[in-house]
Amino acid sequence: MQIGMIGLGRMGANMARRLLRDGHHCIVSDRSPQAVQALAQDKADAAGSPAELVKKLARPRAVWLMVPAAVVDEAIADLVPHLEAGDILIDGGNSYYVDDIRRAKALAATQIDYVDVGTSGGVWGLERGYCMMIGGPQAAVERLDPVFRTLAPGPGDIARTAGRETLAGTAEMGYLHCGPSGAGHFVKMVHNGIEYGLMAAYAEGLSILRAADIGTKESEADAETTPLRDPDLYRYSLNLADITELWRRGSVISSWLLDLTAAALVEDPSLARFAGRVSDSGEGRWTIRAAIDEAVPAPVLSAALYARFSSRGEAEFENKLMSAMRYEFGGHLEKPAGKQ
Amino acid sequence: MQIGMIGLGRMGANMARRLLRDGHHCIVSDRSPQAVQALAQDKADAAGSPAELVKKLARPRAVWLMVPAAVVDEAIADLVPHLEAGDILIDGGNSYYVDDIRRAKALAATQIDYVDVGTSGGVWGLERGYCMMIGGPQAAVERLDPVFRTLAPGPGDIARTAGRETLAGTAEMGYLHCGPSGAGHFVKMVHNGIEYGLMAAYAEGLSILRAADIGTKESEADAETTPLRDPDLYRYSLNLADITELWRRGSVISSWLLDLTAAALVEDPSLARFAGRVSDSGEGRWTIRAAIDEAVPAPVLSAALYARFSSRGEAEFENKLMSAMRYEFGGHLEKPAGKQ
Amino acid sequence: MQIGMIGLGRMGANMARRLLRDGHHCIVSDRSPQAVQALAQDKADAAGSPAELVKKLARPRAVWLMVPAAVVDEAIADLVPHLEAGDILIDGGNSYYVDDIRRAKALAATQIDYVDVGTSGGVWGLERGYCMMIGGPQAAVERLDPVFRTLAPGPGDIARTAGRETLAGTAEMGYLHCGPSGAGHFVKMVHNGIEYGLMAAYAEGLSILRAADIGTKESEADAETTPLRDPDLYRYSLNLADITELWRRGSVISSWLLDLTAAALVEDPSLARFAGRVSDSGEGRWTIRAAIDEAVPAPVLSAALYARFSSRGEAEFENKLMSAMRYEFGGHLEKPAGKQ
Amino acid sequence: MQIGMIGLGRMGANMARRLLRDGHHCIVSDRSPQAVQALAQDKADAAGSPAELVKKLARPRAVWLMVPAAVVDEAIADLVPHLEAGDILIDGGNSYYVDDIRRAKALAATQIDYVDVGTSGGVWGLERGYCMMIGGPQAAVERLDPVFRTLAPGPGDIARTAGRETLAGTAEMGYLHCGPSGAGHFVKMVHNGIEYGLMAAYAEGLSILRAADIGTKESEADAETTPLRDPDLYRYSLNLADITELWRRGSVISSWLLDLTAAALVEDPSLARFAGRVSDSGEGRWTIRAAIDEAVPAPVLSAALYARFSSRGEAEFENKLMSAMRYEFGGHLEKPAGKQ
Repeated sequence: MQIGMIGLGRMGANMARRLLRDGHHCIVSDRSPQAVQALAQDKADAAGSPAELVKKLARPRAVWLMVPAAVVDEAIADLVPHLEAGDILIDGGNSYYVDDIRRAKALAATQIDYVDVGTSGGVWGLERGYCMMIGGPQAAVERLDPVFRTLAPGPGDIARTAGRETLAGTAEMGYLHCGPSGAGHFVKMVHNGIEYGLMAAYAEGLSILRAADIGTKESEADAETTPLRDPDLYRYSLNLADITELWRRGSVISSWLLDLTAAALVEDPSLARFAGRVSDSGEGRWTIRAAIDEAVPAPVLSAALYARFSSRGEAEFENKLMSAMRYEFGGHLEKPAGKQ
Repeated sequence: MQIGMIGLGRMGANMARRLLRDGHHCIVSDRSPQAVQALAQDKADAAGSPAELVKKLARPRAVWLMVPAAVVDEAIADLVPHLEAGDILIDGGNSYYVDDIRRAKALAATQIDYVDVGTSGGVWGLERGYCMMIGGPQAAVERLDPVFRTLAPGPGDIARTAGRETLAGTAEMGYLHCGPSGAGHFVKMVHNGIEYGLMAAYAEGLSILRAADIGTKESEADAETTPLRDPDLYRYSLNLADITELWRRGSVISSWLLDLTAAALVEDPSLARFAGRVSDSGEGRWTIRAAIDEAVPAPVLSAALYARFSSRGEAEFENKLMSAMRYEFGGHLEKPAGKQ
Repeated sequence: MQIGMIGLGRMGANMARRLLRDGHHCIVSDRSPQAVQALAQDKADAAGSPAELVKKLARPRAVWLMVPAAVVDEAIADLVPHLEAGDILIDGGNSYYVDDIRRAKALAATQIDYVDVGTSGGVWGLERGYCMMIGGPQAAVERLDPVFRTLAPGPGDIARTAGRETLAGTAEMGYLHCGPSGAGHFVKMVHNGIEYGLMAAYAEGLSILRAADIGTKESEADAETTPLRDPDLYRYSLNLADITELWRRGSVISSWLLDLTAAALVEDPSLARFAGRVSDSGEGRWTIRAAIDEAVPAPVLSAALYARFSSRGEAEFENKLMSAMRYEFGGHLEKPAGKQ
Repeated sequence: MQIGMIGLGRMGANMARRLLRDGHHCIVSDRSPQAVQALAQDKADAAGSPAELVKKLARPRAVWLMVPAAVVDEAIADLVPHLEAGDILIDGGNSYYVDDIRRAKALAATQIDYVDVGTSGGVWGLERGYCMMIGGPQAAVERLDPVFRTLAPGPGDIARTAGRETLAGTAEMGYLHCGPSGAGHFVKMVHNGIEYGLMAAYAEGLSILRAADIGTKESEADAETTPLRDPDLYRYSLNLADITELWRRGSVISSWLLDLTAAALVEDPSLARFAGRVSDSGEGRWTIRAAIDEAVPAPVLSAALYARFSSRGEAEFENKLMSAMRYEFGGHLEKPAGKQ
């Protein structure tokens, strides 16, 4: 079918390409003329502006926004004057679902249908397909089905879940209408919250393996330091690249994140190119906010989020406070860096 | 090759079967004659006792113990008088690696080689193969290679990790000699520690999705209860079976544990057959102990372990203490069950 | 000075009494005539309604609201038509500071000053005084100084902090103008967030002491249960009432919460009157929300909040999910209650 | 009474001084002649070596060791040949209670009584007295009662706990015989575990207050960063020195640690002299180990311990792993330091 794609960054450009490959008609637009030009070489129909893009689309239109969450409202404000009742506006970025609810309500008066799509798959989506979590009005979502079908991974060679044989629905195709406006981004938000937890679980475990040689290292004895009681229990020099590779086969913890970790470790076991400042892009935070509103305990997902904050130095004042208290009650001075 | 298997429970019996299918000669023994008989029907060579099993094996022997961790020492004590220098004793159960180190040291005088194998795969191993993490002397591990090769999943149709093309080793086959005695169970221990973290991450996230309808429920207003500020943000009735199925395709959080979760939820979305008392079998605890000895932060894995403790009622006295404090400073009485 | 007090529950009634004792003129009102009557016997000036209360106050008026957070907006809406420019409206309850900001902005047009006061002290405040965290316009807060001075504990016999000798301000009196509208409840919110953390820290530690006799109890050996490796290390039967009393003197962890805990344990070491369903009244949740907005790691305060959620059964579905996964991959059945 | 004190560091010297002030006869020894000389000026009886110290003591002797945990075994080995049946050996340092159990057992053959004393009070103990948690044989502990009575704070002006009036025992004096060998250090261990939790709770809360001005700072908008949704909610510039002072009076969270924190913040609100590398000296780790052995959930105490590990850079590899995964699935590059 015909669709407009606004925003040709990493994600948007590849989604347009995947649509083009499958024969859809894509009209594309981006602030960067180079990005538009690149897609035009892949047979996309280039538009010089969102307004021009709208003009090129036949009614009822479908326009897919793939822009940073911070500029979605602005992009919508630019577009709406050009759209009409019956058109569909899709936000495929990382919006907070609360904004979806607000936008859908605001657009209701115009009879423009707002569809929110949480998309997972990252830079691999072009080839693997995009896992899509969709919220919005039933009819609009159904009208977009050809687009979702193309973008989604499809069943692939993934084994069918026992008990699914007689069930209908698109979940096995890799896309799902989750509920009314915001449901798509709500599910995507929690998806990312889980992602943070999974990543931290692997990171902690692998770090425990890495430090399994601590008994071979000298340590000093003073009143401030706990000596390792049983150094003989920590004399292993473990190969993390091999172990993560191993776990990919037959273990209970095999996963796509593990696949990626094995790849990163085989490339450089020391991960020297990374400083360890881990970003968080919103969904992890919003997941905890939802957990708290719902009174659902989320200690693991929270700990994972806080680890990211701490990785960026955000615990510094807390740590100074603890050192200050130790100094006050015990006269303890901090040890210099480099000493445990 | 020829191997003795002692312990024909869930795991041991299936491992023997997988070995038999691939043409190995298995002599089997178990406390339960029925278990031995069942294997004998699958062409195993039945032994009435560990002693008899040893007699049936040609030298140098290889005996695989697949018994509960709590009885491994006893089983070894029974066996050792019948074994000789050059024989190999394998502990394939869930031993604490600290015991491996002790046992290997104790057996060194007898020149019996002790090999520890941490095994993942659960009830699926018969078909999928077992992921094996191996510790012990190089020569003994190499002699057992045919056994490991059969038990392991092999490369299967899992995509090769980029950068692995030129690397040797068995990790891609699903088994790995990780290091000296105890290394196998050390790696398996941390594997399970990670497993706890992954499971809790999914469980938390899915529970947040499940409670996304909390805004549709009435709540009362009193000084003790926080009213939900924005009930309109929590009016989603989400289908967890469909969502977990969806995530299996193309999402960043696809994994084998997710596959299993999708299967459990399609069978019964309410999971009514479970009471929610989650066991922990040791490895999770030992992982945290190692993390602390190594001074490696493990907040996620710890939180996952504590969630299991709490699920079994182990936080009860803590909770009573907190209620008692609230009563003392604020006169707050506990609310009856059923009220939030 | 003259002040109106609306809301004569546990907190409001005692605050009015403390003001009356110190010679202030209090006009009081409450939905319950009995509550008003009780205060009238303590020399308060009874008003039959908020409107009547306002009439009795000389201009410029000061009205203190001490009602549940959920009904503050309603109470303000009732009052405002009777108030005039220059009057002060004080919310002394547990409002979310976000509401303070909104209310102050809304009242700005009327030139009624809105002052938010977070109050700590609980049922002990009548005698000990109330610790007050205050937000709002400087002039209004200054006009209320006589009221704050009376309600606050004053310096008492608490040792002066070294370095405070030359500093001005009211902090040593037990009340503080923290900043503009909302600052009072913001600081009180975090105060309660800390309170949750402190309470949980004591509760966890005391529970570890209580279980120090676990080595004297029998346990079973099976593949599902980790046997306690060193029962000889856990044969202590510790007296928690004595230990908490002990810690009140000279230890680093002495505190008022510890005083209360010691009192609760001396009354009944088993705390049998409590079921362990711990309420949370909002501030703990909002504290975490602020931490996340600010990217400040708060793992301890979060864990304390989640422990309360779990104490009320809110982790049940998470636990069922983990049991379901264990069943799927390992065939593990849950153990019946009563077994560890 | 007469007592020997070996180890005249920060703690040992002050304890000897407190004993001398109260008229006890102290024979002192230390590796540092200067330390011995300093005490001699305070009327202590100087001994040139542990052996000489023993000789100077009348039988049955009492020797108090106040040396780093790492050298206690060595100190005992040096001393024992000079001691006799009926003598008492006290370990007043920070030993792991597991070592106490071992030592008491080893010394049983010699009929030397071993008493373990966990001591809290830090550099303030000389004036405030030391809170002492005691383990060991009843008769030996009773014989040392005069020493404990002097070292302890006594009831002071701390209010008696309601319900204590009719109870006997020494808890109100600030010392307590907690149980058999190891019980003293077990209780002290958990005391410190709690201490870590309390410190972290204050540190987190105060950091949340400190960052309450984040809405006044500029932030950038890109796909990697979550913009602060409501900057107007975070425009407070709070005075932490005043707020901690305030909370000392009448608030639920008043404590001795808060007193110290208020003092540290009044001296320098920025705590610039501290780098934020927080040591941990063993007890916090052992507390978690005990919690896990006992299956007692300790999420708060664990999180507090891990925060210390992280403060010293121990999470670095975990963080690199998370950045590596983000790069693999999303092409996300780390942001340079200085950007959130």
